[in-house]
Amino acid sequence: MRATPFLRNIPRSATSSPSATFRERVRRPGYLSKFAQPTDLAPLFKNGDYIGWSGFTGVGYPKMCPTAIADHVESNNLQANPETKKKFNLFVGASVGPEVEDRWAALDMIARRYPHQVGKEVSKGINAGRIEFADKHLSMFPQDLTYGFYSRNKPKAEHSKPHKPLDWAIVEATAVTEEGWIVPGASVGATPEILQSADKIIIEVNTAIPSLEGLHDINQSFLPPHRQPYLITHPSDRIGTTAIPIDPDRVVAVLESRAPDNTGPNAPETPESRAIASHLIQFLLDEVAVGRLPSNLLPLQSGIGNVANSIIGGLAEGPFEKVQVWTEVLQDTFIRFLDTGKLEFATATSIKFSPEGFDHFYNHWAEYKDRLLLRSQQVANAPELIRRLGIIAMNTPLEVDIYGHANSTCALGSRMLNGLGGSADFLRNAKLSIMHTPSTRPTKTDPHGITCIVPFASHIDQTEHDLDIVVTEQGLADLRGLSPRERAPVIIEKCAHPEYKGLLMEYYDRSLHECLKRGAGHEPHMLRNAFKLYTNMLEHGTMKIKAWDP
Amino acid sequence: MRATPFLRNIPRSATSSPSATFRERVRRPGYLSKFAQPTDLAPLFKNGDYIGWSGFTGVGYPKMCPTAIADHVESNNLQANPETKKKFNLFVGASVGPEVEDRWAALDMIARRYPHQVGKEVSKGINAGRIEFADKHLSMFPQDLTYGFYSRNKPKAEHSKPHKPLDWAIVEATAVTEEGWIVPGASVGATPEILQSADKIIIEVNTAIPSLEGLHDINQSFLPPHRQPYLITHPSDRIGTTAIPIDPDRVVAVLESRAPDNTGPNAPETPESRAIASHLIQFLLDEVAVGRLPSNLLPLQSGIGNVANSIIGGLAEGPFEKVQVWTEVLQDTFIRFLDTGKLEFATATSIKFSPEGFDHFYNHWAEYKDRLLLRSQQVANAPELIRRLGIIAMNTPLEVDIYGHANSTCALGSRMLNGLGGSADFLRNAKLSIMHTPSTRPTKTDPHGITCIVPFASHIDQTEHDLDIVVTEQGLADLRGLSPRERAPVIIEKCAHPEYKGLLMEYYDRSLHECLKRGAGHEPHMLRNAFKLYTNMLEHGTMKIKAWDP
Repeated sequence: MRATPFLRNIPRSATSSPSATFRERVRRPGYLSKFAQPTDLAPLFKNGDYIGWSGFTGVGYPKMCPTAIADHVESNNLQANPETKKKFNLFVGASVGPEVEDRWAALDMIARRYPHQVGKEVSKGINAGRIEFADKHLSMFPQDLTYGFYSRNKPKAEHSKPHKPLDWAIVEATAVTEEGWIVPGASVGATPEILQSADKIIIEVNTAIPSLEGLHDINQSFLPPHRQPYLITHPSDRIGTTAIPIDPDRVVAVLESRAPDNTGPNAPETPESRAIASHLIQFLLDEVAVGRLPSNLLPLQSGIGNVANSIIGGLAEGPFEKVQVWTEVLQDTFIRFLDTGKLEFATATSIKFSPEGFDHFYNHWAEYKDRLLLRSQQVANAPELIRRLGIIAMNTPLEVDIYGHANSTCALGSRMLNGLGGSADFLRNAKLSIMHTPSTRPTKTDPHGITCIVPFASHIDQTEHDLDIVVTEQGLADLRGLSPRERAPVIIEKCAHPEYKGLLMEYYDRSLHECLKRGAGHEPHMLRNAFKLYTNMLEHGTMKIKAWDP
Repeated sequence: MRATPFLRNIPRSATSSPSATFRERVRRPGYLSKFAQPTDLAPLFKNGDYIGWSGFTGVGYPKMCPTAIADHVESNNLQANPETKKKFNLFVGASVGPEVEDRWAALDMIARRYPHQVGKEVSKGINAGRIEFADKHLSMFPQDLTYGFYSRNKPKAEHSKPHKPLDWAIVEATAVTEEGWIVPGASVGATPEILQSADKIIIEVNTAIPSLEGLHDINQSFLPPHRQPYLITHPSDRIGTTAIPIDPDRVVAVLESRAPDNTGPNAPETPESRAIASHLIQFLLDEVAVGRLPSNLLPLQSGIGNVANSIIGGLAEGPFEKVQVWTEVLQDTFIRFLDTGKLEFATATSIKFSPEGFDHFYNHWAEYKDRLLLRSQQVANAPELIRRLGIIAMNTPLEVDIYGHANSTCALGSRMLNGLGGSADFLRNAKLSIMHTPSTRPTKTDPHGITCIVPFASHIDQTEHDLDIVVTEQGLADLRGLSPRERAPVIIEKCAHPEYKGLLMEYYDRSLHECLKRGAGHEPHMLRNAFKLYTNMLEHGTMKIKAWDP
């Protein structure tokens, strides 16, 4: 194998050598000469570099190299001096573990971070103006990266021909094939496109978890006008290979990692989440009864959080057999769903289990592997497939308005939480687009200080044209086929908390009256009052206003 | 052929007989016995009936039967009495000619109208609360119809087994095959799914225009879990038949029509629309130069209106060869684009030419027919295909906000204009999502009373996650890869009218300051002022406010 010019500059530490498992997992002999220590690599990353990581929902991300870079920055106190300060442009399919991403943010090492994140320090940096963040439909992020949309202003690297969108890809693998291709860990995410887009590749082979070879389905990602159909008509269909093809010449270092994915426990169920799940399962039963859904439903997508856990938990015990799952991420409750035999097959782009869940999964890996498949987020979240398969999509927003617009990202219109994720990929294209949320959330002074059913969502990520069903612990509103004037009373009546029903109906009634009077009554609003619940919240810590007009 | 029980109730007028052309065009002999007069059919439509029409953007819709129903209602003064009043639930792929739809609205004959409409009386009825209207992504409307989402509350017809979503389909044809299948006119739209969904079918064979047999590509529309990929990788690919398959037993009447599609002239170009087109063509040239687009571009989608005309007009003379078009509707300027040879192939779901354009087109039909193809709106607007082909999508909104959210439907948040159409199908899934608008619009008292660049769009149909490029006559803002804090200054600087630039920058600066102060600066807003331009407009007839805070 020809060494890249760059490779010659990487020092080879002689102090540590790869384990026997590493030698067994890395089946391409040429890569063994690229074995390196993370500490040797850390100084090579330059201020302003464009870096892509593997990882999705906090699993399958690189741990050694990002940690070594942070250690290097911290121990040399680089951030104190504008001349030595390092800030990077960081691109990952979705979120990664807080010990790397949040630490980078705390050290102010992130100039730009796309398209999704989880972590207090990262969101603090974004909302404080230190980190440029843009959230993007997760199905689109990888293509926009390969299109060069994120690297329009990236300086051209001297040694790079042709110009690549990323300087570096740092990815976790659980094995490497004879061809030098990468077998990912418990997520695929945007890793194929990040590898395709990077000038230099660093591989962290994680020998603490089993080789997950066979779990993944990796298809080639072409650019228009050369794209081909995804020939998938069932969640278990495969269209690719079990490893990610890469050009071995671009691999500049291979590390050994034994650090686990730093996941936490799943969100515990609550009486509210169980009530929501119960409304939803009843709704699905009713749809089967009237013949609008087959008796084994259609493939399910379910988001993250306690409501999702309650729903999947309910289905694990529930009335439907041979259920299919086509989703973005699998949580612990899916293990039970598989174990009870109700779930036949599940595909996603990531498995985010708790530490105990992963222990169980890895110990019983042989039993699960033929009923699971991980795909890239470009495929898992593809509008093409979500629509073709007729997915039932279920996600949690921050708030939904009385006409069916939803906010999934920005509290009070401005403060970014985690980002859009794949919610709009699924909700736009599903056969049944379902949003579930508690009807209220507490503030410091009021256990129901925030209503999640509002007159006009303070940020809109999903529109009225995308949602079919809204459900809270109060009830379920079926919006299919309803006009805006029909939707508002149904949403308020079925979903709003009793403490807000009157306020919301008064908003609607007054808006209707005013708008009809001026011949503008299609989607009635009093724009002067549309955001009044929020301004009251900012001033008084609750959305309970005294009156709509003074 | 077995006559349906219903058919026996239709009187057969002896006063008029089909023309020779009709007999030639209707190749299924059994249909000749179903020849009927529209006046005989009119009384059969009952209050509350669910009716689907063919038609899209005012072409290819039925004229005879809807007119006869309106005549019947009007001449018998049915609407004066609640007991005789007739209001129908009307479903059409998009808009139809005003002489039928607007007349129905003026006679208060429309209870419900989905998913798009054009006409003063229809929008008046919607905004006055007389017509329930919901706009929907045009790719989704046909599937939601076949899913039964629009007929959840429809009473079950006595003689109908199984229960169909529509009582009636009334469709225009330019020919009928031996199998009894329907060759549409100048639009396909939702006609296949409307026919599939209807209990009883009435065919209007239009003998005043040529048989357009061979122009259409009709694929079968399956429901999940039985959907198949659309095997299209080039705009000229065919995946279906040239006529719409139907069950001949459901055809209850066949009429002869000689009424033309009632189209008007195309919107004339203006200096503004030419300036927008010029910015856009320069942008496309630049993208080709840096290698992000092939030299013949990627398939183009272009909306309706004078800006679209200027763009296509510019391209007809322009620097790109062998251009492909994948769009929703073709206007007159496409004739020139075809004639200059720059446009190689165009596919759409409708051809909406001016009367002169149609004359030219029908007279030269043989020359054009191998370079054109009409598909159903479910396929023309399919996310699957728009994304696979890497479409360049260009549409006009009412307004765009400083972060890249767009309003395509509701003036001042409430007054419905025409509906969403296919704008969000294309903008969400295109490789390049472009919105073009004049930077201002006039009010009664101020030639620049309305700014189309606003702080917070009063209704949101396309989100910040969907738009790449905003262009006005002032300039072009390239938003790709930018965070919200980066987008706002670029949109204001490049796109806003000089009379509003200061106001908008002040809104952004003050919002930024306030939101950073409370650690919520991702997408800065002053919610108390976010809609102030609109409330000023409602009170004072202009968006030019004196100050953001009193």
